[in-house]
Amino acid sequence: MQRYRATLAYDGTAYFGFQRQAGDTPTIQGRVEQAIVKVCQQEATVIGAGRTDTGVHATGQVIAFDVDWRHETGDLLRALNANLPIDIALQSIAVAEEGFHPRFSARSRSYIYRFYQRRMRSPLWDRHTWQIPTPLDYAAMQEAAALLLGEHDFATFGQPPQGTNTVRHVMRSNLIQGDVCEYHVTANAFLQRMVRSIVGSLMAVGRGAMTIQTFEAALDAADRSRAGTTAPPHGLTLVDVEY
Amino acid sequence: MQRYRATLAYDGTAYFGFQRQAGDTPTIQGRVEQAIVKVCQQEATVIGAGRTDTGVHATGQVIAFDVDWRHETGDLLRALNANLPIDIALQSIAVAEEGFHPRFSARSRSYIYRFYQRRMRSPLWDRHTWQIPTPLDYAAMQEAAALLLGEHDFATFGQPPQGTNTVRHVMRSNLIQGDVCEYHVTANAFLQRMVRSIVGSLMAVGRGAMTIQTFEAALDAADRSRAGTTAPPHGLTLVDVEY
Repeated sequence: MQRYRATLAYDGTAYFGFQRQAGDTPTIQGRVEQAIVKVCQQEATVIGAGRTDTGVHATGQVIAFDVDWRHETGDLLRALNANLPIDIALQSIAVAEEGFHPRFSARSRSYIYRFYQRRMRSPLWDRHTWQIPTPLDYAAMQEAAALLLGEHDFATFGQPPQGTNTVRHVMRSNLIQGDVCEYHVTANAFLQRMVRSIVGSLMAVGRGAMTIQTFEAALDAADRSRAGTTAPPHGLTLVDVEY
Repeated sequence: MQRYRATLAYDGTAYFGFQRQAGDTPTIQGRVEQAIVKVCQQEATVIGAGRTDTGVHATGQVIAFDVDWRHETGDLLRALNANLPIDIALQSIAVAEEGFHPRFSARSRSYIYRFYQRRMRSPLWDRHTWQIPTPLDYAAMQEAAALLLGEHDFATFGQPPQGTNTVRHVMRSNLIQGDVCEYHVTANAFLQRMVRSIVGSLMAVGRGAMTIQTFEAALDAADRSRAGTTAPPHGLTLVDVEY
């Protein structure tokens, strides 16, 4: 039995998140496990670095699974991709180092949240990008984003997984303007819905519904009820996991 | 009765092209005409500047239709968008100038064909971008693309609509490299499948399956059988129509 480590990309639109669910509910983990059964004729549990929610995408999800495979690793990659749906694709695969665990070994995770400010919908962007019909104050949003850098109690922006605290260390929190704007955020780990909650509050600042002072006070309060509306999942992509 | 002119964007993945077909076959024209019936309580024929094929997208398709509308033009825009599917959206609307016809009045059309060179599929790009798994010689492709500039008989790269000739004037034919590469092409008009046929041949040059000399000889021969394989529709987007 050998542990393999792989990078996985997917369009999450059609899936009920990463984590396997009962029955035929389509999930990313479920689809990859089905491909492994077909290719390796073995059952294997796929472990992911991040349990992305329903509708969230990935270009750099990291997974691991244990199987017996007597051929080249590159053949495993090609065989699995040939048995995955069109909206899920392994990007690379390698034999995992001793003791490797996608979640526990990770030092940090990086997400990008995409949005665009236009009154009209843009059908070619709408699967992966949140449309904001109102004007936005990007300078204020950038200023608010910078307040998140460093170690904070992020209880305002998300629930912790059971039994853990809400302190996280944010290493990157930066807005990149363009026709499609990107909010880049990297942290040692994230609370549940943390990126979408942050983006919702940044958008409130951008629209003028929340001042930078209110945003900062909300962060400091460590109180979930002080966050803005959570942004929709389809703008969010897990882009990298660092080890 | 007033003629309106509108710009239309759509993700063509789910549609059998622009042009209305019999029965319930989903087409762009059909869906817009259904929205007009709902909003205006009148039947109207939607005329498009370009009859995009099955699976081809648009960000700048131009359409016209005649209806009675007693309210603000902006209200017509909002009402139509509220009655269009999520993958079709009007971008703007205005009262058309006297005698305006989206196809006959057009001076030129611009398309972008998107592709990426990677061995692995990229699910977040795959709806609008053609994956090329083999290495590409971009310099050779750029050189071949430049040969198309000016007035030529393009019979090698497409069929003419009935009763017209195959001479077209290409004003732009340019490759822009990036993670996603874009081939930008503008011409006074296009033959059927012309952009996809050109892209297929450019890709043959990029893979080394066709030399630049063979590409040029194929163009000069004005012989449909000398073109490379036609590129798939999903990489193609109609981006602008100039009047």
